[in-house]
Amino acid sequence: MNILDGRQLAKKIRAELSEEVNKIVAAGGRAPHLAAVLVGEDPASQVYVRNKVRSCEKIGFRSTLIRRPADVGESELLDVVRQLNEDEAVDGFIVQLPLPRHINEERVTLAIRPEKDVDGFHPVNFGRMAQGLPCYLPATPAGILEMMRRHEIQTEGREVVVIGRSNIVGTPIGILLSRKAYPGNATVTICHSRTRGLEDHLRRADIIVAAIGIPEFVKGSMVKEGVVVIDVGINRVEAPGTEKGYRLCGDVDFDSVSPKASLITPVPGGVGQLTVVSLLMNTLKAARREIYV
Amino acid sequence: MNILDGRQLAKKIRAELSEEVNKIVAAGGRAPHLAAVLVGEDPASQVYVRNKVRSCEKIGFRSTLIRRPADVGESELLDVVRQLNEDEAVDGFIVQLPLPRHINEERVTLAIRPEKDVDGFHPVNFGRMAQGLPCYLPATPAGILEMMRRHEIQTEGREVVVIGRSNIVGTPIGILLSRKAYPGNATVTICHSRTRGLEDHLRRADIIVAAIGIPEFVKGSMVKEGVVVIDVGINRVEAPGTEKGYRLCGDVDFDSVSPKASLITPVPGGVGQLTVVSLLMNTLKAARREIYV
Repeated sequence: MNILDGRQLAKKIRAELSEEVNKIVAAGGRAPHLAAVLVGEDPASQVYVRNKVRSCEKIGFRSTLIRRPADVGESELLDVVRQLNEDEAVDGFIVQLPLPRHINEERVTLAIRPEKDVDGFHPVNFGRMAQGLPCYLPATPAGILEMMRRHEIQTEGREVVVIGRSNIVGTPIGILLSRKAYPGNATVTICHSRTRGLEDHLRRADIIVAAIGIPEFVKGSMVKEGVVVIDVGINRVEAPGTEKGYRLCGDVDFDSVSPKASLITPVPGGVGQLTVVSLLMNTLKAARREIYV
Repeated sequence: MNILDGRQLAKKIRAELSEEVNKIVAAGGRAPHLAAVLVGEDPASQVYVRNKVRSCEKIGFRSTLIRRPADVGESELLDVVRQLNEDEAVDGFIVQLPLPRHINEERVTLAIRPEKDVDGFHPVNFGRMAQGLPCYLPATPAGILEMMRRHEIQTEGREVVVIGRSNIVGTPIGILLSRKAYPGNATVTICHSRTRGLEDHLRRADIIVAAIGIPEFVKGSMVKEGVVVIDVGINRVEAPGTEKGYRLCGDVDFDSVSPKASLITPVPGGVGQLTVVSLLMNTLKAARREIYV
């Protein structure tokens, strides 16, 4: 069993990005610039956004945090988006989701210029991904691909079973791994809440991507010897007697699955570590005009 | 065994569309208007486009055919696209593919306004489809869904195996059938040229969508009793002694598969009959501004 250490990989990639920034600046260019829009006071959102901004600073990217109160009007928020679209000093930006209920998330996402949509949520980027065209990939699928690439995980002809069909993980990673590319060329099955005989699917999988949001759902008895396990879940479960009163765990029961796995990502410290890094990589691509000229 | 008669279904839908047009015109509106751009003299493309134009006329749609010689410049073709984008009398239009080699198909497709992209090939429409948003679906997947709906084929929790991962059939139908909708909620596996153990996948399928482009590839021995078979292939194979010297067949060996199938689409006369109808349905949606306001 080998543990895929997301923390170490993220550190390595950040160092590479930092070096790239140094080169750009040394050559007289300006550092890539990511802006983040945060609406309201949702504690989780605040942590995520702060994390993104801090990660920028650490590697020498410019970053701007734009805050609006929870009762901001939709049209005012759309104005912020439009200003960022026009601002030539900003290479890419994100609007942290979820937004308050009175704001239409779809409308906001559609208002972001695809050229600056480093979250990869705009239908243009999603469609380009599904059609195999250059695009900004959503952070989690991009992180999974990067991990596979760096660890030289073979995917061609392999049986991949994805559990979960969300727009941010299951659906895109399924599309990407079935396309004619590396990582890709796998035979992908997408399983979800309506799937019957899920265990039979899991048992024939060479690679499992678990993104179902149920703590420790995948057990050792459901997987075959030698399986590669990518655990995307981040769940809080009660842990009486611990300091915080809870612990974090994935969608995979690490204790029973890891002895059978040839490779497995832990939670925490696995794929989750790469999501912010993916955003930074997209921002560098935006600064370089790699996707859209 | 039941044969899914595409010809009859297409006829029925055309009659319904015709009735809709009559209502629109009776209410003082104008008939939906589809324009088609044909470049060069490719015989197959000419047949397809003529077919589309004629189908419009038959049901009372307006249609316009715009022809350009094979040596038309890309910028001139892009001008045609721009004019159609602006023309308020045109609800939707298509540029018949393939285009001559000196023209970048991607650039032309991207130039079409998503609101008028009734082929559903623009990344905006493709992305919206993959994200589960309202959009113009590509013709063949739309035809398959329509067929499933009209014949009340159950898909929820069923095992669907798609053979082929093209942007116009395999990839989109795989995405659509796995989404939370009807038809959909199926467990979908996408198989392709790099798939190992394809026969094992086919044998466990409740529904097979064959879009691989190999004549009579799927044999009776590869499918289970009661399977539903959607055959998207249209292949010409030599048939010495016949008048034309060839015959049309699908990707499924009808003679050996049909006795085991509960439902099967024939070739010709199956799903192919619905592709033009899907285009007409999209054009009606465009005229009604159902997808984009």
